[in-house]
Amino acid sequence: MSAALSQPALDADETLHSTPRVYRFSAPLPLACGISLADYELVVETYGELDADRSNAVLICHALNASHHVAGVDDKGERGWWDNMVGPGKAVDTRRFFVIGVNNLGSCFGSTGPRSANPATGKPWGADFPVVTVEDWVDAQARLLDVMGIEKLAVVMGGSLGGMQALSWSIRYPERVAHCAVIASTPRLSAQNIAFNDVARTAILSDPDFHGGHYYEHGVVPARGLRVARMIGHITYLSDDSLAEKFGRDLRALADGAPREGYGFGFGVEFEIESYLRYQGEKFSRYFDANTYLLITKALDYFDPAGRHGGDLTRALAPARAKFLVASFTTDWRFSPQRSREIVQALVANGREVSYAEIDAPHGHDAFLLEDPRYHAVVRNWFEGIAADLAARTPASAVTLDLQRLAT
Amino acid sequence: MSAALSQPALDADETLHSTPRVYRFSAPLPLACGISLADYELVVETYGELDADRSNAVLICHALNASHHVAGVDDKGERGWWDNMVGPGKAVDTRRFFVIGVNNLGSCFGSTGPRSANPATGKPWGADFPVVTVEDWVDAQARLLDVMGIEKLAVVMGGSLGGMQALSWSIRYPERVAHCAVIASTPRLSAQNIAFNDVARTAILSDPDFHGGHYYEHGVVPARGLRVARMIGHITYLSDDSLAEKFGRDLRALADGAPREGYGFGFGVEFEIESYLRYQGEKFSRYFDANTYLLITKALDYFDPAGRHGGDLTRALAPARAKFLVASFTTDWRFSPQRSREIVQALVANGREVSYAEIDAPHGHDAFLLEDPRYHAVVRNWFEGIAADLAARTPASAVTLDLQRLAT
Repeated sequence: MSAALSQPALDADETLHSTPRVYRFSAPLPLACGISLADYELVVETYGELDADRSNAVLICHALNASHHVAGVDDKGERGWWDNMVGPGKAVDTRRFFVIGVNNLGSCFGSTGPRSANPATGKPWGADFPVVTVEDWVDAQARLLDVMGIEKLAVVMGGSLGGMQALSWSIRYPERVAHCAVIASTPRLSAQNIAFNDVARTAILSDPDFHGGHYYEHGVVPARGLRVARMIGHITYLSDDSLAEKFGRDLRALADGAPREGYGFGFGVEFEIESYLRYQGEKFSRYFDANTYLLITKALDYFDPAGRHGGDLTRALAPARAKFLVASFTTDWRFSPQRSREIVQALVANGREVSYAEIDAPHGHDAFLLEDPRYHAVVRNWFEGIAADLAARTPASAVTLDLQRLAT
Repeated sequence: MSAALSQPALDADETLHSTPRVYRFSAPLPLACGISLADYELVVETYGELDADRSNAVLICHALNASHHVAGVDDKGERGWWDNMVGPGKAVDTRRFFVIGVNNLGSCFGSTGPRSANPATGKPWGADFPVVTVEDWVDAQARLLDVMGIEKLAVVMGGSLGGMQALSWSIRYPERVAHCAVIASTPRLSAQNIAFNDVARTAILSDPDFHGGHYYEHGVVPARGLRVARMIGHITYLSDDSLAEKFGRDLRALADGAPREGYGFGFGVEFEIESYLRYQGEKFSRYFDANTYLLITKALDYFDPAGRHGGDLTRALAPARAKFLVASFTTDWRFSPQRSREIVQALVANGREVSYAEIDAPHGHDAFLLEDPRYHAVVRNWFEGIAADLAARTPASAVTLDLQRLAT
């Protein structure tokens, strides 16, 4: 296991170079749907060094279209999806913390999912891959930590769907979570949230290239549906104001670069916002798997810890023992600050220690991925407090070792 | 013309029975896109009686999916789309006003549109039907009034896209509009509004059954795309709160009526909101034409009277001479009250008389179609004031005639 836990190489400018590692599990994983996954793989990246008493581990949970590649630059030269947050000297400082990124089951970035072989048929699972839940992911992540020899996380952290996983960790494995950061998230999807997800799913399911989810065998992908799904999603990630600011009613220049004189009176790309959205849809349809999109939107829809307690979130969160950071963004209309406040109120009612930041940021839901100074300062301060607590109880020798390595 | 202007039959309970009438125009209509429509037809319904001096006409402009069938019951037994607003004794009282509903060019309810024969080919226009604008519709409506012998409207009125037409009337034909009611509308679409429209268009354009807009010849309709388009639109017409209130996270009963025990872990209809939206999409795809959807969303996107004045709405509205009613709904996030306030401010800056009502209603954009008591009271009061002004200058004989007819 030591190879997996070693620190990635650092450039002179301290850029992390991350290499994913595959963990194979052979004990069946019982899922919420009633099916057990007989064996499965999880792809993992880690950054920083696990300290001697294995107390500085931070698990980062990803949202819909992200992966294990949280930080640094991978072999393809791509930056991690939260590289502005996680790295040496960053808010989640990999000089102090051992950070784990894991691709969730059902995703399409290497962990077992719809493109993997169904042991029953030898062919790709396709749409037969079991519908996994937030709780299933958390259980799979807990097993990963078992294998890594990490009994307790210093922090579990996530934004959006990742925040749901963090919250679920605090309920399902209260003794294994010292701190929990739930960012731009919600205790449950609203009818409107589910509605947007279902339109996206309908676009995919009704694409003739979907073939009941077994499109791999037909050598096609339901790209049309996936494009529309992504366009819808993308609108909900951004605020009305940020779209107005970024695109307004600007017209896209013509193919030859000349500015558009008046309207085109056709149905091609004309406004900048159309160009942007169609480009986002097209790009997404080339790298993301439609079956994964279906699965992950269902995991979003299903998440509702209070549902098992008659809608009482306070009772649902009663088992939690962690110290919390909850953060929301004023212009996030997908998971509005009100949703985060519900979490805070339930935690406070349970006597938990909670830091809550409602950040006045213009970018809507996507703000959690962006480098807003106030937001990052909040996260940095919270992590510095945790690091200070850890340092106070870490044996001096380990600290020395760590400083020596950083000095080389 | 007298046949067209006669009052529809009334039941004992004063239900209007409306019969549409087709007006044929042979003078070419120049459109904003540069094309002229050589000849065209408009389908019209009228309610109430035009008074002797032709001063009590009210033109109702329709929004995306509505038609000339504003009020009463048609031959198929269907109620008009604004029947709660327009009729004998209703807020827009057809005992006092002569109300005109007209299906716009490019629509799919009888007026010339994509399903009509293109004179150049003898085949349906399909996607070759010219992209019409709000201003084109207003020009066509003005010609209709010419033929009807109505020099000046007592009121032009519309909600949403209909409100844009009313506003455009006040600018293009200021001497022909005494009063103008602009409800749940906006002086221009935002980037977010355009984004939602473009996702809807993308769903239609990328449906393999679209066939470049010439699907009529293939005996198919792009129903998949149209369903998704309608589902997206529908979400934006309703408020988050009203969806929460109406559907919440309720699960749909199983096909046999039994309540659902827990989640289904599949991609079929599961939540009530999914059932509702998919049903709305399905219904819409059976009665609405996809080419019309494309055209009308473009008319929405293009509307921007201030655009021709460097974004200065006050200058754009300077020609208007009407007295205005502007109304918005607090939970309308498609065309929020702020958009209506922009109109009010520009009108006031021009010295216009404006009544503005911001109605605290829970139903989002759709509120303009619903029977909210405060909203209807506002419209009723405004129309009663207009009726009183008209009565004060109407010859006594005409009033007597009208009362006699109502007494029979």
